[in-house]
Amino acid sequence: MSDLSAQHPRIAVVAAGAIGAYYGGRLAYHGHSVHFLTRSDYDHVRRHGWTIYSCDGNFSLSPERLAVYANPAEIGPVDLVLVTLKTTANNRFPSLIQPLLHDRTAILTLQNGLGNEDALAALFGGDRVIGGLAFICANRTDPGKIVHTAHGLVRIGEYARSDRQRVEQIAALFNAAGIRCEVLDDLARGRWEKLVWNVPFNGLGAALDLTTQDLLASEWGTEEVRGLMAEVIQTARACGVDLADDLIADQICKTREMGAYRTSMQVDRQSGRRLEIDSIFAKTLQAADSAGLSTPKLRHLLDLLRIVDGAIPASSSPVK
Amino acid sequence: MSDLSAQHPRIAVVAAGAIGAYYGGRLAYHGHSVHFLTRSDYDHVRRHGWTIYSCDGNFSLSPERLAVYANPAEIGPVDLVLVTLKTTANNRFPSLIQPLLHDRTAILTLQNGLGNEDALAALFGGDRVIGGLAFICANRTDPGKIVHTAHGLVRIGEYARSDRQRVEQIAALFNAAGIRCEVLDDLARGRWEKLVWNVPFNGLGAALDLTTQDLLASEWGTEEVRGLMAEVIQTARACGVDLADDLIADQICKTREMGAYRTSMQVDRQSGRRLEIDSIFAKTLQAADSAGLSTPKLRHLLDLLRIVDGAIPASSSPVK
Repeated sequence: MSDLSAQHPRIAVVAAGAIGAYYGGRLAYHGHSVHFLTRSDYDHVRRHGWTIYSCDGNFSLSPERLAVYANPAEIGPVDLVLVTLKTTANNRFPSLIQPLLHDRTAILTLQNGLGNEDALAALFGGDRVIGGLAFICANRTDPGKIVHTAHGLVRIGEYARSDRQRVEQIAALFNAAGIRCEVLDDLARGRWEKLVWNVPFNGLGAALDLTTQDLLASEWGTEEVRGLMAEVIQTARACGVDLADDLIADQICKTREMGAYRTSMQVDRQSGRRLEIDSIFAKTLQAADSAGLSTPKLRHLLDLLRIVDGAIPASSSPVK
Repeated sequence: MSDLSAQHPRIAVVAAGAIGAYYGGRLAYHGHSVHFLTRSDYDHVRRHGWTIYSCDGNFSLSPERLAVYANPAEIGPVDLVLVTLKTTANNRFPSLIQPLLHDRTAILTLQNGLGNEDALAALFGGDRVIGGLAFICANRTDPGKIVHTAHGLVRIGEYARSDRQRVEQIAALFNAAGIRCEVLDDLARGRWEKLVWNVPFNGLGAALDLTTQDLLASEWGTEEVRGLMAEVIQTARACGVDLADDLIADQICKTREMGAYRTSMQVDRQSGRRLEIDSIFAKTLQAADSAGLSTPKLRHLLDLLRIVDGAIPASSSPVK
């Protein structure tokens, strides 16, 4: 059994939606041994492969070069599991991930929000777990077709381990395959910084069905974004992560430069998919409540998202 | 100059969107002398008239039978002005209504929300003003085409006068033309009762872009609707209108029976038209604030609507 220091570690992607197909696809295209778990596009991808239109260079993976699976038992143990599942499907961690583990398998989650590493650690041991933040605009626009329009950076950091060797190896592997990857010394800080952006833009974007540009088009919208960011920063501080107030102006400025961007959660809403409410919003509010903070904007946003999510037909697939 | 007791009073409709075309159209079809001010559909209606698909019986008005105008000066003084303008265009009351007045002209507003009668009274004298509530589902689906899908009742009441003679005459005139019309002894109560419905369903419907059925699909949504209704009832009481708590259960039950209804404000949002924020929401919040009440759900809903409205291009026509 090889491991991460090997030339070609075995890698599994659980599961290959837009993010998983893009990152896993880059690694496979670079020649790595990547095994994709996929569901909604399984038949299509088995027959036609993936075509990835990327701002960093288009590429395609023909069926002959692709290892796609509907069942993790067919993949068997790997050295690295990339977790790109929607957090609405985190209850499927045991059945999807357990069959992929050997003694030293690392599990890297690139999911949104809080609590994903905790959940993985509770199930499989904290020593395996690596946290990752994906900064990327990518959508699956048709079966087998991924469109990557902007960014692409991944930031990763150990969840429980203190030495950087393993994450440095993964970062090197990613960078060599054309995926910009940085190592974080402080994973919690990175995660909270991302939440400062995700809470207002994914939240308001999905609740009101507005793009980032729409949200920042009026002083009303900009003020609501600022207010939500301030509440997340306050919550981060209560959790021991001292974020600077400058982050608000900085993130708003960078978001204006992005143009009219539909967040993944707005896309989920428009596609009739369930929203990642728990990991991004409920867990953040829980942290605020536990610290005795008052975060009324976050609380009300969570209520609105539950209304919108409650209007999505129950038959919608939890994994896509 | 005739008046409302005459066989055929002169009537003006300001301005003929879906509601104005439907009610004015019924009166014209019944043989009344109705003069329509219209803007967006002027050319089309001059040439092709209106076709009204109505749950109470389809009818059409050919160009020869229609008096449509782009300018109120061409209409001249009338006995009754029906005001069906979007409240976002209330700043145009002076220029649109003044040319239509003789000494005894009555002005009946069928607009949404609070403050329309006050604004008309301040400009033209309270004695002229009659308040009206239109309970109707009607949309302009194409130029010259109005679709009336449900309801149609109008409730009217004097704003400043105490005798019922004038409103009884109008009610008789409406009923004879096939428009169900009731006289209210207490206009304020009728208006607040309608606000109890408009605030949650128009407000959340437009902010979240959800139908009435979507809003009531989950316990989260139903609870938010109930909370907003309770705040409006509390505000009405502080304004001296003692609404019963039963109104909440009653209105929610009736709304469930309506199916998946898009409120006029959701339709406005989807059509890129400005939202009637001031009359329905800001004025209600002002009333609550003046009474020293705390209405956090209403306040936050107003914020959200301003965000959504702020994302509508400024070039959108204020009257349509």
